[in-house]
Amino acid sequence: MRRLTALLALAATTLFAQRSDDQSIFGFTASSAAKERTLEAQFDTKLNRDNLRNWMQRLSARPHHLGSDYDRQNAEFIASLFRSWGYDTAIEEFQVLFPTPRTRIVELIAPEHFTAKLFEPPLSQDKTSGQTDEQLPVYNAYSIDGDVTGDLVYVNYGIPADYELLEQNGVDVKGKIVIARYGGSWRGIKPKVAAEHGAIGCIIYSDPRDDGYFQGDVYPKGAFRNENGAQRGSVMDMPIHPGDPLTPGVGATANAKRIDRKDSDVITKIPVLPISYSDALPLLRALDGPVAPPDWRGALPITYHLGPGPSRVHMQLAFDWKLVPARDIIARLPGGDRADQWIMRGNHHDAWVNGAADPISGQVAMLEEARAIGELARSGWRPRRTIIYAAWDGEEEGLLGSTEWAEQHGDELRQHGVVYINSDSNGRGFLGVGGSHTLERLVTQVARDVRDPERNVSVLERMRARDLSLATTPELRKQYREQELIRLDALGSGSDWTPFLQHTGIAALNVGYGGESAGGSYHSVYDSFDHYTRFIDPKFDYGLAQAQTTGRMVLRLANADVLPFEFITFAETMSRYLDELSKLAETTRNEIEERNRLVRDRAYEIAADPTKPFASPKSEPTPPYLNFAPLQNAVSHLQRAVHDYASAPNAVAVARGAALDHALMHAEQALTRTEGLPRRPWFRHQIYAPGFYTGYGVKTVPGVREAIEQKQWTEANQQIDIVSRVIEGYAAEVERAAEMAK
Amino acid sequence: MRRLTALLALAATTLFAQRSDDQSIFGFTASSAAKERTLEAQFDTKLNRDNLRNWMQRLSARPHHLGSDYDRQNAEFIASLFRSWGYDTAIEEFQVLFPTPRTRIVELIAPEHFTAKLFEPPLSQDKTSGQTDEQLPVYNAYSIDGDVTGDLVYVNYGIPADYELLEQNGVDVKGKIVIARYGGSWRGIKPKVAAEHGAIGCIIYSDPRDDGYFQGDVYPKGAFRNENGAQRGSVMDMPIHPGDPLTPGVGATANAKRIDRKDSDVITKIPVLPISYSDALPLLRALDGPVAPPDWRGALPITYHLGPGPSRVHMQLAFDWKLVPARDIIARLPGGDRADQWIMRGNHHDAWVNGAADPISGQVAMLEEARAIGELARSGWRPRRTIIYAAWDGEEEGLLGSTEWAEQHGDELRQHGVVYINSDSNGRGFLGVGGSHTLERLVTQVARDVRDPERNVSVLERMRARDLSLATTPELRKQYREQELIRLDALGSGSDWTPFLQHTGIAALNVGYGGESAGGSYHSVYDSFDHYTRFIDPKFDYGLAQAQTTGRMVLRLANADVLPFEFITFAETMSRYLDELSKLAETTRNEIEERNRLVRDRAYEIAADPTKPFASPKSEPTPPYLNFAPLQNAVSHLQRAVHDYASAPNAVAVARGAALDHALMHAEQALTRTEGLPRRPWFRHQIYAPGFYTGYGVKTVPGVREAIEQKQWTEANQQIDIVSRVIEGYAAEVERAAEMAK
Repeated sequence: MRRLTALLALAATTLFAQRSDDQSIFGFTASSAAKERTLEAQFDTKLNRDNLRNWMQRLSARPHHLGSDYDRQNAEFIASLFRSWGYDTAIEEFQVLFPTPRTRIVELIAPEHFTAKLFEPPLSQDKTSGQTDEQLPVYNAYSIDGDVTGDLVYVNYGIPADYELLEQNGVDVKGKIVIARYGGSWRGIKPKVAAEHGAIGCIIYSDPRDDGYFQGDVYPKGAFRNENGAQRGSVMDMPIHPGDPLTPGVGATANAKRIDRKDSDVITKIPVLPISYSDALPLLRALDGPVAPPDWRGALPITYHLGPGPSRVHMQLAFDWKLVPARDIIARLPGGDRADQWIMRGNHHDAWVNGAADPISGQVAMLEEARAIGELARSGWRPRRTIIYAAWDGEEEGLLGSTEWAEQHGDELRQHGVVYINSDSNGRGFLGVGGSHTLERLVTQVARDVRDPERNVSVLERMRARDLSLATTPELRKQYREQELIRLDALGSGSDWTPFLQHTGIAALNVGYGGESAGGSYHSVYDSFDHYTRFIDPKFDYGLAQAQTTGRMVLRLANADVLPFEFITFAETMSRYLDELSKLAETTRNEIEERNRLVRDRAYEIAADPTKPFASPKSEPTPPYLNFAPLQNAVSHLQRAVHDYASAPNAVAVARGAALDHALMHAEQALTRTEGLPRRPWFRHQIYAPGFYTGYGVKTVPGVREAIEQKQWTEANQQIDIVSRVIEGYAAEVERAAEMAK
Repeated sequence: MRRLTALLALAATTLFAQRSDDQSIFGFTASSAAKERTLEAQFDTKLNRDNLRNWMQRLSARPHHLGSDYDRQNAEFIASLFRSWGYDTAIEEFQVLFPTPRTRIVELIAPEHFTAKLFEPPLSQDKTSGQTDEQLPVYNAYSIDGDVTGDLVYVNYGIPADYELLEQNGVDVKGKIVIARYGGSWRGIKPKVAAEHGAIGCIIYSDPRDDGYFQGDVYPKGAFRNENGAQRGSVMDMPIHPGDPLTPGVGATANAKRIDRKDSDVITKIPVLPISYSDALPLLRALDGPVAPPDWRGALPITYHLGPGPSRVHMQLAFDWKLVPARDIIARLPGGDRADQWIMRGNHHDAWVNGAADPISGQVAMLEEARAIGELARSGWRPRRTIIYAAWDGEEEGLLGSTEWAEQHGDELRQHGVVYINSDSNGRGFLGVGGSHTLERLVTQVARDVRDPERNVSVLERMRARDLSLATTPELRKQYREQELIRLDALGSGSDWTPFLQHTGIAALNVGYGGESAGGSYHSVYDSFDHYTRFIDPKFDYGLAQAQTTGRMVLRLANADVLPFEFITFAETMSRYLDELSKLAETTRNEIEERNRLVRDRAYEIAADPTKPFASPKSEPTPPYLNFAPLQNAVSHLQRAVHDYASAPNAVAVARGAALDHALMHAEQALTRTEGLPRRPWFRHQIYAPGFYTGYGVKTVPGVREAIEQKQWTEANQQIDIVSRVIEGYAAEVERAAEMAK
């Protein structure tokens, strides 16, 4: 009687002493694993790097943003490819709100006059940069229209902590226009927080410190953002909900019921526009007031001041608020005996401009993976489960294509969805994977079985070599050496997994390579085929590695005898989150008490330089102790359940087949609640969500964590109860699976 | 039978609940303390801020570097002041080697041509900046003559760790000219380490990140270094020895025996010159090769590359190597019954140019302190011990005046010296004190008794308020709250205490205010009266605070019934150093073993980006375990001895008077050895020294610490033995004092 985990586990190993002798594949019996290995070897031989290059050139040849002519042509081209490879393919169309600019003015009107160019000029070294007729101009989508004039304030990244520091420096943004630099959070947080503090307009610029000359030579000499490069991007309030602003929660079909634009809660409250650093420099240089704190200073050759003024700025923005078609390509390869289980794989196809890196680098790797799998299917193999490829439209504006599709197909998805595997931009370097912690073993084994194209080792070994060689403490090195599995990053938002994982409760992964191809072409006209093939992945080595990686994930999920979900790692992760939360509560309480004591003792005031503006931090009520017991009990219950499942006999598990799969694949949905999170019901997952004030950055156990961060103690206790019940429910699901496998 | 420490100690206190009721003064009986308080109150009333302003204007009115006409005039003026206040005053003259430039050329000869200006232009807002006829040009004193041409390499701060990183990036400086930025170490380390690595020339520039626009508005708008500002300074190899290069170890009197200049070991091996950032920009901008690591990048609007080349530089330097007179002013106020005990107080008077901040701000505070003490003496009071004021010349070139004086008067000093109290530049803000740990209680009580001019609290409370409000961990805050005494920084080098403390073995302090008056005028023509009175201490509030602080130290040391030395804090400090050293040995061993393992496993190689130059770190022999037992035993002996002394009855101590004083004042000399430190016998102190590779920065227990840092394991064990014997000897001295006080 062998145990499931023992049968399928990796041997515990040190850094470089593994793989060679371990041929097991999690979820497969030994004989199935042998067949799977043969299939994957065939799969590898079918991959052809020339396809990636040719498709990238084709798909990024012209600007192809949502609603554009070339976006439509690309959709049709992609659909035709899938059809030619034998997939059951359709283009599914939604009608979504997509504002494009009519008027864009940013000008300094005092102490001198300067008008921002708001334009990325064509470069002779970049063949597509001159397609100005088709390019979307530099702007932030879902900014409201507006015409405002005010003194300028520099707010660093414009996140909540920055406003605390402004207050301590005696600077108020009420009635002012703020200028924030890109970075530190998702861009949409900047106008949101600025508006909460009373600002009337928001400018976002790309500081050369963050992706310009401070980081490396600028384009076209090097890969980084030049003085005129600017970052387009959506500022829709996606932590509330992504997708079409007019049809929250339902598919934006032609006849869907739409709310009035004025009633949308995801369009900004103040006008916002991104600019380049050559446009920002005159505005920032003229600022006076306190010198910005050291961490706030960028790489422009000036002293960074906070203002307000004397820089006075006029901003005028007006948009065409029109509905446009979003075209998702959906391609199916029907499964065999478990065709009702869907393995989904997606990457968006729309871009801000030409988008060679974002998203075409990921798209072409997915296409080549799909082509090879199509070939396998034509040569006689058939997946046990149904494989669905999706090329999404309108991701850049706010995950429009994927969200509308997931909303439209919610019931089917909840019934059939097993895993959604996402990718987006891809580059040279190291494998990076985020996702549901139940999938850590699957991911680790795939990483073990893909060779790194630059070094003669697996991509797993290469990740570990990097982690070990960068580790700054012995404890960290010990952890890396002893940790058998890759630790997946929890997923926030920023790409198309969000509607699957966080709204629908489908286990998800996001997969990509990077770390050796830094640059500053993001959301710029210079994200081009020329830029990509000079600086990012010139030979498409890592495009191929990506296809091998995600292709293996798809094949293993599609073919496994038992779905390769492992609950032990999830339970361990939950224990870690519980620790984090109780420490966060404790630290927050201690910090408030300590600050109150220092305020009482006048320490801040006594230490302050009287020649500088200074407002002492204020006393706050002492936070109560929170009752973590329900969560502790739930996690303890979960621990018992997962070990129960892990000790189930493998042979029985295999015999239970489809029935067990159903229990496994629906477990993730037990982590969702139809009521969703406080103040954002669209986000139903109780363990993973993008932060309300980070935007892309994840908040795990968000109901509890954000209540503590926002010092909402009553709500924190309520949320602990809610999450505890969710975990108890999940543990019960795992127990049912264990029962079934006995 | 009261105990000495109990009688004299501060009550243990929380931050703001002290002082008001504690009237004790360490070293004084209760009745003497009352008298001392009355005296100090009189002293305070005599201080007059107008004198500070007027003297600063007078002393900084013209450039007054070593050997200049105005330097001589200042010396005579200062001497005349001391004489007028009743001090027994003499100008003591030495003949010292002082090179000044004849030729200074730095030019970029490829890929384009640019000639460095090497000139700080006059500014209309700065009245003395136009005295170009008398200004020393921008240069580094004790650079050798040279005429070199080579490709340029950027070496960051140019410290040893930077060269390790260069090597890992595949960059070699052999035969190259290096350009280093100021900061990260004392400037003299840069050409020294560059020469050790085979460079043929060294340029040092002021990056705007370190004291230019990145830090604040530049002069004359603000206090920071403008594009043409450059930092003069000595590059003599002072960690070998300070003072006249031709007379190491003996006073540079007119007839002293001099070595040949070629035989000096403190003149640089390669030519070196400082430049401004406007002169550096063309050189750095043209560099290619690997991009500099993030920490190396300054605030110039360029991508920082390492080189070598294509920037190619020609440097040509020639100097007038002449002897000039260094004029020390020595002013004595003879003591009463303990006139053979000298309380010394010094500040240099020479500057690089006008030197309003450095050194005149410290000099005028000392003068006003001396004037007030002179007045007290005229009104009937007489110090029990002899007070000696010294205004040193030639400090900027390498502590020439103080070193020659201390060498010339070594025997007397060892016999009579009790404490040397140094000061130098002074500014607004917080009290900062470094020095012998036996003086922590004296310093703390003085800080308790001086009011901060900006806030209605003592300067001690203000320091603590700053430490508490900036503390980043609860542990640190706890430590600050519970720590009764100010923890003195150990002294490295950088001003005139060095010959007293580290060569002669006289307990020393360095005292000054700062932290609210940052700027970039250091060693520039813009260190002027105009700059100082706009940006540094406009109303001389902290000049007065400084006079009150050091004046109290002088008065208490001069008047005490028993010298206020406390050994417990020194013993605690030694325990801390012992911990640090054993941890350093352990960490070094672990790091080497870990690195060896990673090298063996090829982790660095596997993780590296193959498109970038990279040399893997190399394996090193595994370090042996060191035998710390002798040092542990010695520190344990010391602990017993200091507690023995602390429990001696106070009344008896007072009765023993002069005899006990002699034991106390000579204890510090027990920490010196005439053989000095390895490879630098001039440095005799075994606990405090400037680092061989830091220059100013202290290395405590330097023989042991630097042996570990340099991985000289045999020497480390030898040095542990040597220091252990020194500590044993010191403990025996303390035991003798305790015996005497029983």
